[in-house]
Amino acid sequence: LATEEGLIDAFLRHRPRSPAVPVDIGDDAAVRADGSVITVDTLVEGIHFRSDAAPFALGGKMLAVSVSDVAAMGAVPRHAVISVSSPAGRGPWLGELAKGLGKACATYEVDLIGGDTTGSPGPCVLSLTLLGELLEAPWRRSGARPGDHLLVTGTLGLAGAGWMDPAPSPAATDALATPRPPWRLPRAFHRAGVPVHAAMDLSDGLATDAPRMAAASQVALHIDPHALPAVPEVASRPDRLRLQVCGGEDYQLLLAVPAAAVTQAKAVASSEGIPLCDIGEVRAGTGAHLIDTPWPGGAFRHFGASP
Amino acid sequence: LATEEGLIDAFLRHRPRSPAVPVDIGDDAAVRADGSVITVDTLVEGIHFRSDAAPFALGGKMLAVSVSDVAAMGAVPRHAVISVSSPAGRGPWLGELAKGLGKACATYEVDLIGGDTTGSPGPCVLSLTLLGELLEAPWRRSGARPGDHLLVTGTLGLAGAGWMDPAPSPAATDALATPRPPWRLPRAFHRAGVPVHAAMDLSDGLATDAPRMAAASQVALHIDPHALPAVPEVASRPDRLRLQVCGGEDYQLLLAVPAAAVTQAKAVASSEGIPLCDIGEVRAGTGAHLIDTPWPGGAFRHFGASP
Repeated sequence: LATEEGLIDAFLRHRPRSPAVPVDIGDDAAVRADGSVITVDTLVEGIHFRSDAAPFALGGKMLAVSVSDVAAMGAVPRHAVISVSSPAGRGPWLGELAKGLGKACATYEVDLIGGDTTGSPGPCVLSLTLLGELLEAPWRRSGARPGDHLLVTGTLGLAGAGWMDPAPSPAATDALATPRPPWRLPRAFHRAGVPVHAAMDLSDGLATDAPRMAAASQVALHIDPHALPAVPEVASRPDRLRLQVCGGEDYQLLLAVPAAAVTQAKAVASSEGIPLCDIGEVRAGTGAHLIDTPWPGGAFRHFGASP
Repeated sequence: LATEEGLIDAFLRHRPRSPAVPVDIGDDAAVRADGSVITVDTLVEGIHFRSDAAPFALGGKMLAVSVSDVAAMGAVPRHAVISVSSPAGRGPWLGELAKGLGKACATYEVDLIGGDTTGSPGPCVLSLTLLGELLEAPWRRSGARPGDHLLVTGTLGLAGAGWMDPAPSPAATDALATPRPPWRLPRAFHRAGVPVHAAMDLSDGLATDAPRMAAASQVALHIDPHALPAVPEVASRPDRLRLQVCGGEDYQLLLAVPAAAVTQAKAVASSEGIPLCDIGEVRAGTGAHLIDTPWPGGAFRHFGASP
């Protein structure tokens, strides 16, 4: 969101800059000189989740969205701290949230090592800071090169259906409530020596995210709209493409890898149970393009635009 | 606050525990195996700051309260990430907040390396996560030993007057708005070899904080009420003691050091321009006690209890 990026810019513009921090704003996480990465994500009741959201799943989502950012840097998640600001009378709800977060910590092998909870006269605000450990040089958004292939993990569009449909299917509701980022991919690629030129996570949808990688890398991304992976429930819908590129909330990875490494990358991902799909290529130029197809109109924003 | 600690407990109870994290809950910051410490603090509009708070000072306070936590561990502040959830129409206010945070980053030699900003239908919520670097074994709350002396940095009570008085003095208003934690003390003590057995920062006031150190260390703290350092404005007031032990918001350090090291500790602190005052001693027993004086009644909470 333009406003959000402008605000972060305002904060970062006023800070002293250090050469010891090679990557900071504009990537999925900041990189520290010691090889750790750090990211913070905040979920606000009424904006990012509804007041009747199931707290157990929400606790897990708090962590999963940050795990996705860490994975997008080619790092492994390690330690988290949380901040919870909540109106009074939410004890049982927060207890379920804590259980869901605890389960997600076990899933992603993350230690929750601290936190701050405060009262609030307003909506519940959940913020989580996650530290991860790099296995190799960070995967940046800026490294895509002409000739690279574009790969995407998992499938796209089901989570978008979860919030766009008035009465979403159970599978779509689940995809929205419980993102499953491919967090094991960085380690598997590192061990196998799969080269990754660029990576980012897909949180806002390809129509928003792909241009960011194109701009950071100063290249053009050409994406085949027919190659975008979908579960049958999404693939069969007339609004499939819109769901897949505008829906957002996918928490999958978009990767740019050399053409010669695509077969190996797919094999390594497959061995981890992670689908990896070749959706296009990097060329000289600018911007992100759907091949022979305009980007679907009526791009929308997350929950902010929904009832 | 009992409720807050209960909530954090609920979150941490459900997480997997790791032997790689020697200190987590119950101290000022969590310690990671790599020698870094991490703390998160959240300020909520209407609870921790008033809607008409000066944003420049508030931006600095966001960082200072966390710098205080890091100093209390014997660590040096390094990297911060922020989360800002704000209602619409606060652009100029947030710009001033960013400037104040930027200035504080320069003061405390902290790199702001990332952040997340979101809209909110409710009050502004500011959360900051700070990473610090340990110089030696962490200063814990639990290490005070009988025979240690209790030292406190700076003075106590002025910030409390800033929020308790209906029409506070400019100095009291400033002390409340702009905490100045003695963040250079850990490095100075480390270089000089001053031994610190236990430390914590004073954010809620001695009446609340001293019993926490006593409990963590399983000792008794005996504090001389006449020895508590105060600026003249506070020292001359009939409610001096209440301000000094119940007011909170001091962001000074309470330290337990061996009796033999008190003179050296004072000299080293003095060389850094940090006042250090001997306020009592550690004995076998339990609890925190004012010598020959009951704790002032009517303990109150931060802004939550004020109009």
